[in-house]
Amino acid sequence: MPHKKAQNLEIDNLDIQILSILMNNATTPYTEIAKELIVSGGTIHVRMKKLEEMGVIKGASLEVDPQKLGFDITAFLGIYLEKGSQYNEAVKRLKEVKEIVELYYTTGSWSIFAKIVCHDTTHLREVLNERIQSVPGIQRTETFISLEESVKRQISLD
Amino acid sequence: MPHKKAQNLEIDNLDIQILSILMNNATTPYTEIAKELIVSGGTIHVRMKKLEEMGVIKGASLEVDPQKLGFDITAFLGIYLEKGSQYNEAVKRLKEVKEIVELYYTTGSWSIFAKIVCHDTTHLREVLNERIQSVPGIQRTETFISLEESVKRQISLD
Amino acid sequence: MPHKKAQNLEIDNLDIQILSILMNNATTPYTEIAKELIVSGGTIHVRMKKLEEMGVIKGASLEVDPQKLGFDITAFLGIYLEKGSQYNEAVKRLKEVKEIVELYYTTGSWSIFAKIVCHDTTHLREVLNERIQSVPGIQRTETFISLEESVKRQISLD
Amino acid sequence: MPHKKAQNLEIDNLDIQILSILMNNATTPYTEIAKELIVSGGTIHVRMKKLEEMGVIKGASLEVDPQKLGFDITAFLGIYLEKGSQYNEAVKRLKEVKEIVELYYTTGSWSIFAKIVCHDTTHLREVLNERIQSVPGIQRTETFISLEESVKRQISLD
Amino acid sequence: MPHKKAQNLEIDNLDIQILSILMNNATTPYTEIAKELIVSGGTIHVRMKKLEEMGVIKGASLEVDPQKLGFDITAFLGIYLEKGSQYNEAVKRLKEVKEIVELYYTTGSWSIFAKIVCHDTTHLREVLNERIQSVPGIQRTETFISLEESVKRQISLD
Amino acid sequence: MPHKKAQNLEIDNLDIQILSILMNNATTPYTEIAKELIVSGGTIHVRMKKLEEMGVIKGASLEVDPQKLGFDITAFLGIYLEKGSQYNEAVKRLKEVKEIVELYYTTGSWSIFAKIVCHDTTHLREVLNERIQSVPGIQRTETFISLEESVKRQISLD
Amino acid sequence: MPHKKAQNLEIDNLDIQILSILMNNATTPYTEIAKELIVSGGTIHVRMKKLEEMGVIKGASLEVDPQKLGFDITAFLGIYLEKGSQYNEAVKRLKEVKEIVELYYTTGSWSIFAKIVCHDTTHLREVLNERIQSVPGIQRTETFISLEESVKRQISLD
Amino acid sequence: MPHKKAQNLEIDNLDIQILSILMNNATTPYTEIAKELIVSGGTIHVRMKKLEEMGVIKGASLEVDPQKLGFDITAFLGIYLEKGSQYNEAVKRLKEVKEIVELYYTTGSWSIFAKIVCHDTTHLREVLNERIQSVPGIQRTETFISLEESVKRQISLD
Repeated sequence: MPHKKAQNLEIDNLDIQILSILMNNATTPYTEIAKELIVSGGTIHVRMKKLEEMGVIKGASLEVDPQKLGFDITAFLGIYLEKGSQYNEAVKRLKEVKEIVELYYTTGSWSIFAKIVCHDTTHLREVLNERIQSVPGIQRTETFISLEESVKRQISLD
Repeated sequence: MPHKKAQNLEIDNLDIQILSILMNNATTPYTEIAKELIVSGGTIHVRMKKLEEMGVIKGASLEVDPQKLGFDITAFLGIYLEKGSQYNEAVKRLKEVKEIVELYYTTGSWSIFAKIVCHDTTHLREVLNERIQSVPGIQRTETFISLEESVKRQISLD
Repeated sequence: MPHKKAQNLEIDNLDIQILSILMNNATTPYTEIAKELIVSGGTIHVRMKKLEEMGVIKGASLEVDPQKLGFDITAFLGIYLEKGSQYNEAVKRLKEVKEIVELYYTTGSWSIFAKIVCHDTTHLREVLNERIQSVPGIQRTETFISLEESVKRQISLD
Repeated sequence: MPHKKAQNLEIDNLDIQILSILMNNATTPYTEIAKELIVSGGTIHVRMKKLEEMGVIKGASLEVDPQKLGFDITAFLGIYLEKGSQYNEAVKRLKEVKEIVELYYTTGSWSIFAKIVCHDTTHLREVLNERIQSVPGIQRTETFISLEESVKRQISLD
Repeated sequence: MPHKKAQNLEIDNLDIQILSILMNNATTPYTEIAKELIVSGGTIHVRMKKLEEMGVIKGASLEVDPQKLGFDITAFLGIYLEKGSQYNEAVKRLKEVKEIVELYYTTGSWSIFAKIVCHDTTHLREVLNERIQSVPGIQRTETFISLEESVKRQISLD
Repeated sequence: MPHKKAQNLEIDNLDIQILSILMNNATTPYTEIAKELIVSGGTIHVRMKKLEEMGVIKGASLEVDPQKLGFDITAFLGIYLEKGSQYNEAVKRLKEVKEIVELYYTTGSWSIFAKIVCHDTTHLREVLNERIQSVPGIQRTETFISLEESVKRQISLD
Repeated sequence: MPHKKAQNLEIDNLDIQILSILMNNATTPYTEIAKELIVSGGTIHVRMKKLEEMGVIKGASLEVDPQKLGFDITAFLGIYLEKGSQYNEAVKRLKEVKEIVELYYTTGSWSIFAKIVCHDTTHLREVLNERIQSVPGIQRTETFISLEESVKRQISLD
Repeated sequence: MPHKKAQNLEIDNLDIQILSILMNNATTPYTEIAKELIVSGGTIHVRMKKLEEMGVIKGASLEVDPQKLGFDITAFLGIYLEKGSQYNEAVKRLKEVKEIVELYYTTGSWSIFAKIVCHDTTHLREVLNERIQSVPGIQRTETFISLEESVKRQISLD
């Protein structure tokens, strides 16, 4: 059941239960969901349509193992801008760096915080040195590397 | 086409093309993928099965908009342990904190780096103060908050 | 006019206008406010009573010049706890230190952030060394001192 | 009784007692203060006039609950200037940012330290990114957010 | 002429002029000072006696060149205590380390700041490792070394 | 007896003993020193002349109590230059700031480290803001203030 | 025996054993190595030739004691560039500074990390100030000095 | 020619020239060195014997390419001890970690600074987590990784 602040009038417990099931496995057939929640399959369809229209559901994505595809390095970048005002322009340019998979404007000492996935340390050096640090407005970066990913999961709606 | 280090003998260009399509939209029907790549639907099935058996594909997940579900705060935590050797025990306990959606062992000055999703700043305070900082071995945390998520996407296999 | 998130159904523009006047000068007579806003004095009374009952108004305070009363030093303290879990106990003890005029639980690297007002540097040393650093759970503090206060004002409701 | 350094010849114990009462509640009637301190109402008037003329009393302000007015975020900003010499110009521009409620020139590593009150994290991002970081001379900011305000009170004159 | 805050009734311009001369060269004969300031030698004696009795003058010291005496390293130490409350005890112990020539309780992130003079880097290591870091309550130190002393002079009273 | 590295052939034990006495009190009469060390007064004169000619002795200085002269603030400044290469020029300008009593080129993160003596926090702000931060090449400063001076003494030659 | 990732088909256990012996002492005669590993001297020659051709062996170097040659200071430099994109140009210039014996592009907060060997602190100051900090693109450096070298050895292949 | 401080009476220019040649290539035959320096082969033998007896020459080592042997990661570790006094014990234990190839006691904020060579990030995590962070007295480590080695050379004696 959602936290009190989420008591959106349009989302009820059944919606949450449907979402929870699909967030674990996006390919669960609606019939199976219907059975588990003891409602009709049509209800699942109606609810899913509503959640998609509301923008609650944005899509479904295949989860892959990056290492099995030759991506051995997950790195995090704290980015300092020469001037905070260069943020919008810098973000536009950083979006073109396809190794960047997440990018945030954050509190703390960095202007931008990014997550980056690379093949190896040589690849990381190329991306940092030739593609990220050459973006106008980026002064310098602080990088740290994941040596082990212990948790990676969806938000729990329970 | 994958980077040279990824030239895993078992994964060919067709596999990569199938993965690319499904990483964008996990619910694309196989018939559509087959048509796009000008191969038979059976080939898609065979390849998908191989990729699943190889562990390249780990599943499919529904992408939701956390804000629409009442999760307004995405925070990042750098965690200092009293002793680096308490890492395994601390991770075990942190896995029970359901607001933590990602957790890494990293280089740099933090032992553990985590991503956390909360309803609001009050919720974040509760999680930090009552559930994370009470884990044995955790000395202190450095927290920063996302004020805007500008990029969130899958690894590009092209 | 308040920001869209503040569109609390119970607070309207007139309330905001009354508050704005009194936040500048808490002793403005209601008759004067009524005249300025072209409403009856009774309306001001009704609105003020509502705002007090809602907890929007917490009181009125005299603004004094601390330097004229011999308080020459305004300092800020970032406090590190030995263990984040000692927060509640530490706050309880810090409340007894009357030189502390503000105290927050914050993101970033400090657990607690405080504002402190002292007579002089000797007084500051005594407060830090004898009363704050002796609080159980406080490991160490980072102190910085205001050399000039350039802005000190109320939230603008316009 | 004030600390020895405050033994300003013009301020005596009675002044301090009057100030203490009004600093708790600025709307306490003079007759009530007079009764409590066992002096005449006229004495209170005389003393208040003296304290105002001396600049000890700067005014009275209504205390409101910012959250009840839709201000959910209190943030602190450490501001680095490109050149320390740009301080005066930067302060002038920062005064125009109405979300900034306090601003100091401080020791330590920041040039300017500010307190800011915003509606939500989106509002904070706008203020930081569009109004503060675009001020000429401001290089970058370090932001931290209050997750809980535990103490907020006047200087104690006892 | 001293700054307005130094307008100590007991110290006049003549005192300041005498002090200035002797702060440059403590062995200047009184007769020479008297001549320069166009007063009698007795006046210098009277003033000096007064300044000594007031504690303004604490003594005279020979200035030597540490390098000529085999002291090649001037280092600065920021000292972190396990607990701020251990300050008094730690200072007592640090006073016994004769290589420490100055020691302060400071604002900022360190509890104690010290200046240390050593023969060479080996000597510095011994002092840090065997005599300073073994003092109960000292957690760790941050050390930096002077590579050149560009200014070393007395306070200017002009 | 000096450390082995100081076994300068020209400085013997007697020199060291003479220096030790005068470093404690620069005005000790030579006759008294001669008596204490059981040598002739002429020997003291000869040795002192040698030590002065060698540059071991640089002069004598009057020790005053800065607080008694209205200097209440001792501050330390870590100075960052825009470019390390601006060091020589910056030092030349900083020497003109008479409140700076010591200045070093140091290892660590600062280029320049300085000790400064001021009347009060307002004076410190003026010196920092108007005279130090306006020196060409100085990017920013980190300041910390002494709240207590616990040790201040000469190098021990024993 | 090498770690599983090093199971280069071209390098076998015998190669590793030969390398281990020579990494300890590069002047061990091949006949002695042959005897120890119970193979023919010709085998050693064949293997060494192969390892040289593969680039596994890059040469042999004389190990000297820097202190015995008058190099008393080993320092480490973290270098910040004005812009990360100036890396290649800066490295080219830094290679001309012969006191720099190692230079890396690293993760973390520095762009470049270098090891430097100097005669004394004066020499270090000259190198830092006149030759390193004047390289275009270098903003500032963080220096730390080795006070003792406790371990210096080759990679262990066992 | 060595720097003035290295004007060790026992080491002359010829010694330096011999060392320079062998530091570039430890296997240069003495006959070749003799020819180049226009001295007899016997002179080279006599000088080398002297330099070995003086401890100037400590040995010769084979230079290998770590990457060709499966060592892909060079990392640097700043180590904080719980107490500085645990240094000697910690060093003793760290010497047993064969991946550590260099170890120093340094100025700055770390107690110990180490260089470590590992096969890959998983290997690095094991070494850090299981072997280094479990050493008694080690509180935490700051790690950074080399993404490129641009310079690695001997001290230049010219």
